[in-house]
Formats: sequence, structure tokens, C-alpha cells
Amino acid sequence: MGELFQVRTVRDARELLRKHITATLPVEQVPLLEALGRRLARDLSAMDAVPGFDRSTMDGFAVRARDTFGATESLPAYLNVTGEVLMGRNTTAAGKLNAGQAWRIPTGGMLPSGADAVVMVEYTEELDERTIGVTRPVAPGDHIVRAGEDIAPGDGVLSRGHVLRPQDLGLLAAVGLSGVPVFEPVRVGIISTGDELVETLEQPGPGQVRDINSYALYGQAAAAGARPRIYGIVRDDFASLLDKLRQALVECDLVLLSGGSSVGIRDVAARALDTLGAPGVLFHGISIKPGKPTVGAVVDGKPVFGLPGHPVSAMVVFDLLVTPLLRYGDYPDDPLEFPVRARMTRNMRSAAGREDYLRVRLYRENGIIFADPVLGKSGLISTMVRASGLARIPAEKEGVEAGEYIEVKLF
Amino acid sequence: MGELFQVRTVRDARELLRKHITATLPVEQVPLLEALGRRLARDLSAMDAVPGFDRSTMDGFAVRARDTFGATESLPAYLNVTGEVLMGRNTTAAGKLNAGQAWRIPTGGMLPSGADAVVMVEYTEELDERTIGVTRPVAPGDHIVRAGEDIAPGDGVLSRGHVLRPQDLGLLAAVGLSGVPVFEPVRVGIISTGDELVETLEQPGPGQVRDINSYALYGQAAAAGARPRIYGIVRDDFASLLDKLRQALVECDLVLLSGGSSVGIRDVAARALDTLGAPGVLFHGISIKPGKPTVGAVVDGKPVFGLPGHPVSAMVVFDLLVTPLLRYGDYPDDPLEFPVRARMTRNMRSAAGREDYLRVRLYRENGIIFADPVLGKSGLISTMVRASGLARIPAEKEGVEAGEYIEVKLF
Repeated sequence: MGELFQVRTVRDARELLRKHITATLPVEQVPLLEALGRRLARDLSAMDAVPGFDRSTMDGFAVRARDTFGATESLPAYLNVTGEVLMGRNTTAAGKLNAGQAWRIPTGGMLPSGADAVVMVEYTEELDERTIGVTRPVAPGDHIVRAGEDIAPGDGVLSRGHVLRPQDLGLLAAVGLSGVPVFEPVRVGIISTGDELVETLEQPGPGQVRDINSYALYGQAAAAGARPRIYGIVRDDFASLLDKLRQALVECDLVLLSGGSSVGIRDVAARALDTLGAPGVLFHGISIKPGKPTVGAVVDGKPVFGLPGHPVSAMVVFDLLVTPLLRYGDYPDDPLEFPVRARMTRNMRSAAGREDYLRVRLYRENGIIFADPVLGKSGLISTMVRASGLARIPAEKEGVEAGEYIEVKLF
Repeated sequence: MGELFQVRTVRDARELLRKHITATLPVEQVPLLEALGRRLARDLSAMDAVPGFDRSTMDGFAVRARDTFGATESLPAYLNVTGEVLMGRNTTAAGKLNAGQAWRIPTGGMLPSGADAVVMVEYTEELDERTIGVTRPVAPGDHIVRAGEDIAPGDGVLSRGHVLRPQDLGLLAAVGLSGVPVFEPVRVGIISTGDELVETLEQPGPGQVRDINSYALYGQAAAAGARPRIYGIVRDDFASLLDKLRQALVECDLVLLSGGSSVGIRDVAARALDTLGAPGVLFHGISIKPGKPTVGAVVDGKPVFGLPGHPVSAMVVFDLLVTPLLRYGDYPDDPLEFPVRARMTRNMRSAAGREDYLRVRLYRENGIIFADPVLGKSGLISTMVRASGLARIPAEKEGVEAGEYIEVKLF
């Protein structure tokens, strides 16, 4: 059966998955303070202007700019102080600023009607309680935020699909939204397969190892904003695997099988996925290292991945194929996926036609960021722990040389 | 009072704070699956070797490497297949591999005693059920992970202070640690001050604005792994501020005052901080833009920050002075704090002797990452929302020119 499937590039694998995934996530309303990292379920726009009035950005005096034109230290513009703006008060009620007048105003205060600029207190001299000299001219609009300059009423403020950051919470608070519609987190089912695996709390006997992948993948899913659930270890037989997969597919939006790096087990997994629903297995192998023996499937609209058994391979594939789905519900073009340029400390070979991912330890010397490859087999979780990021060697290259720059994603 | 305090550089401000912060965090034991993003409270080391036995990394045949020396496609080395390794089984019990013999072995299987390498199935030909021809020689150790090669017993695996990532959970599972000692999250109290502020759900009248900073800072604190709590809006008077600060200092490990950009309010805040405990205010102003009017204090060993009222300024200062404390409990040298190099799309001026932080929108064109400054006053939260990162112009520079590279931290 494996023969029927070509080995795919990451791009092709993403296209294939995208074409077949149809499952959608429910929408829920959450309080603003619980919305960090959640994905907006619809476009949001502002009802009100922010701020709702012209506002001073400095401590000083509200003035008519033209009254200050030509002012210098030796020949200040003299203005009569006829009012004071109090924070949070409606200045309109207090009257109008007329020609030749100035009102005391604090940072954030409401500009009085008639004024069109603020003079910073540093550029005034107080002659007496009722008179100031302005020593530097201002232009209309200086040291003011205009009504609606931050957000205008009707402005689209954030779009559907946007993942909320701290500043977004600030913006939503500004327009009075104390709750937001977001997609529910993706429920991720994690199944480990392998007759050699034992639970963390067990003491492995000869030939046995503790299940590493369930924990690493759980961490990656949680870090991507999903709601992971561990389904435990399944032995390598068709019936148990089918049962566990069926349960996970009912309870989750996305399912990960990990382990089963040996050919026999991969075939069992692929057969189970084809049995469960259409279209079943989409590809059997991707042209990357580590991570080649990856099975991608969609069962009744839900993605299912058969990840390699080696922990490093499983984590790399998760990063490339699973993280975008959890975070964005899609595979968006992300030009900043590998945002750090770092200089290789040594030569590393790779095969053309295959993307290579290197575990690298980054450090800085004389302002330059260096990438020092962490060597070691992809079965060694400790190599991921010693690394600070993942570097990519593109498919068209046959390696990188010491001194060459490479693109890195930080862990 | 303000006159007594010099304006500090970020580095000096950090040094001053570090010297006076003495409060420590309690330690708690959490289940491994809840430990993501938490900070380890002590060094952890491994009890067992991982793996506990020599392990195959390929599907193929366990052999004595010397039996394959000189093998070629035209002149294979013939070996007798005398055993099969089953996943998870103790191979020792099944006897020993002798000269001229090969045992079938799956990826992850336990190497039989007597074998020292694995031949990949691709480089064998099966002559009959009991005989294979090896068409390529292997060296001792080929396609094997040695016992303890991932983690040796007694190895220090992770150090006190380390913030746990997904791969760290995998490593801890591998050595059988199902719970880990971590520091409790920092409890952060957030107080907004300002007579102009109203709550999110209120409709601001003329002169009033909704509280933005509480939400943005809450988001930043949560993103840094802390446990934030909003104490609401306090009016600008000494007694209310003192009361609220006192309460927050009892209930939290770190307190943020925000708002109060005007000189009068900052002085009230500084006076309140000096009243509450020693040493009180440490600095009054830092040489950055935006963010200059920042008050730094330590009260009975706990850090308290008077952040500027402008949301962008407050968020920048949070990022520089608060985030490291929340994440690492200190100000470690982080050479990767601004890890992205991006090319400026336009000239931007700054003053020498002052660090400038620009909101920038990053995009990639022809493989180059460009930083396009988001212009706008630091009172406008929408400028932070439009930006994808923060770029730093070092204090010794008087600006950056279009085409010049600048260092950026991604949001």
C-alpha cells in the first residue's frame, strides 16, 4: 500500500490536507481577560471613537496655535490664563478659549473648545498667576490626539482568525468589548503506539522505554493553544488501534498517532485510517529529515497524523504540519516562520530534494548570532533539550557551510 | 522630589532593582502535564539510563559488524538468520548472536547480546528464510543508540530556573519524573490611576476614556507566565492610592501602577511608594522613548512600577523591566532578546543617549525581512495592534536610515 503513495514535499502535504479538512470549530464567547491567545471567530469593529474628544498628550497649556506664531525666548507670546482643564471633566461645559487666552491642561485632559494645540509646560514661563509667556511656537494639532485618531467609529479593529495578543486586549477594552467571540481550542487526541512503551511511572524492563512522545506532543499542542488529551499507549495490533482511533475521532478535532516507526506498524496504522472513513490516508512519507516516515490522513473531515516514533522527528513534523492547524486552523503563508538569521559554526551536508531541519544552539558573539548544530540521532530527546531552535536547509541546497547564514525558528 | 533622582538607563534601572528585590516565590510540585512554561525550582538529574539498553534505530538485521566487512552488491556477506527481536522484549533471555549470524530487528528493538550494529533492510537480500546477503558493510555502532546515549544515569538534565518547553516535558517523562518542583507564578497586581478613566463596560462621557492599560498589562503578564489580577481604577488622591497599594502589596509579589502621566500624579504615586516601605522609589525616569516617565520602586523587597499612562509606553516598559522578572525572576543577559534583523523602510531619527523603541510591521520581500515603522503617538493603542514587533535603536545612535538593519523583537 505504501507504494501507492508518493513521498510529498511539506508544501504538497499541506495542500492535500487543506483540501480535505472540512471539520469546523464551535464558537464561544469568552470574557476579554480570558481571550489571550484565542482566535477571533468574527471581524470586530468599533462603535465609538477612541478617544471621544481631542486630548492633550502633554502637561502644559491649551492655546490657539496662531497666538504663538513667531514666539521666541527673547520675544515670548504673552497669553492670559483664563481656565484650567481638570482630568476626566467635560471642558465644553466650562466655556470657550478665546484669542490671546491659555488654559492649564494635564496630559490626557480634554481640549477646551476654541483651542487647537497644546504648549508644553517646558516652553512657557509664568509671569504671574494670570499670565504666561510662550517661548516656542506650536502648530495646530501639536501635542494633541484628535477625537477618533486612535480608533474611528465603524473602523474594523480586528479580523476573524486573528490570534489575540496583549495589545489586542487593550484595543478591545478601549472600544468597550468586555467579551469576544472566539473559536474553541482544537481538541487534540494523542495516541502512542508501540509494544516497547511503558508509562512514565513504570520502571522499564530490558527492551522497554518510557513513552516520551505523548508528553512532548502534549506540550507542543498546549503551546499552540490547543486542548490536548493523552489516550495512552496502544499495543501494535489492528483491532486495539482501530478502537482507540475511533474513540479519539469522536472526542477530538485532530488526532495524533505517534510511534510505529517500523514499517509493519506504519502499515497497520495506515490500514486503520483507511478503514475509519474517507478519504483516509493522503500521503505516506514527506521529503524532510528528520520526519520522513509521516502518514497524513483525513477521516470524515478531521486530520489525523501518524507521526514518526523518534521524538525529534515527531516534534519537527508537529511543528510543520500540526502547529499551523492548531494556531490558525489552516496553513497560512507565514513569512516570519523562520525569522532569525544565524551564522553556521560548521559545515552540514544535506541531500538535494529534501528539506533538512537542524537542531541548533544559538549564541551571540560580537553582535552576530551563531547557529551551532546539536549533533545526535533523531531518537535522542536530549538533543532537542540542548537546542534553542530549529534551522532549515531548503530542499534545493546540498548543505550549508561554516560561515553561511541559515534561517532559524526559536523554540 | 523628582529632582533627587537621575534618569536611568535600562541597564542601570535593572541593576538597581535587582539589588533591592529580595522577595522569593514559594515552590510547588505540579504534574508534568501542567508544567509547560513553568520555572524549575531545583536542578533535576536522571536516575536511569535512557534508553536502558542498546537499541536499533532502523528496521533490519542485528549483526556483528566485522562479519559484514568487505561486503558489496556483487559479493555480499552471507549470514544465517537465527533469531528475531520482538519489540519491547528482553533479548538477553533469547540467547546470544554468534559469528556469522543475523537477527531480524525492528526500529526500537533491543540489540541481542553479541551484536554490535544493525544492517538496514535496504542493504540486504533474502536468499531464503534462513539466509541473507548483506550488500554493504556496517561499522560497530551503526544504526544503534547505545544504552545511556540519550541520558546517562546521574546526568543533570535540567537546571533550576529553566522555563519548561515541550521537549523538556518529553525528557522528564523519559527519566520517569511525573511531577516537577516549580516556582509558583508571580502574582501581579495591576492598578490603574486617573480621574479620566472608566471601566470597559461604561460609556465614557466627554473628557473620559475607558481603561486600556489594565487589559494590555494583564495580557502581557499572563503571556509571561504570571498570575495577574486587576485592582481597578483608583482616583488621583494620596489616601486612596495608598490604601489600594497596601492591599496589592499584601496580596501580590509585584505591583503595577499605570496611568498618572501628568507630573502631579506621578509625584503622588512616588510619595505613596516611599511611605509604604524601604527603600521606596529607586528611580524616577528612564532614558528610553517611549517610556521615559517610569517610576521604579521596591517596597519591602517587592518590586513596584509606576508605568506611564500612554498605553504604548506602558507596554514597552513592561516588556523591558517587568517581563524578565516574571519569566526568569531576574534580569538575565538574553542575547536573543531582539533576535530578528530587519531592514528599515525609511529613516527614523532618535536622540543620542536615549534608547528608542519603534513599533514596526515586518514583511518579507525577496527573502529579506523589512521593518516598516508604524507611526503614531504613544497614546494610540492601535499603533501597537498594527505592529508585529518592537525594534530598538541603541542609545549611541542618532537614528537609523532606510536600508539600514535594525534588531527586532516579535510580539
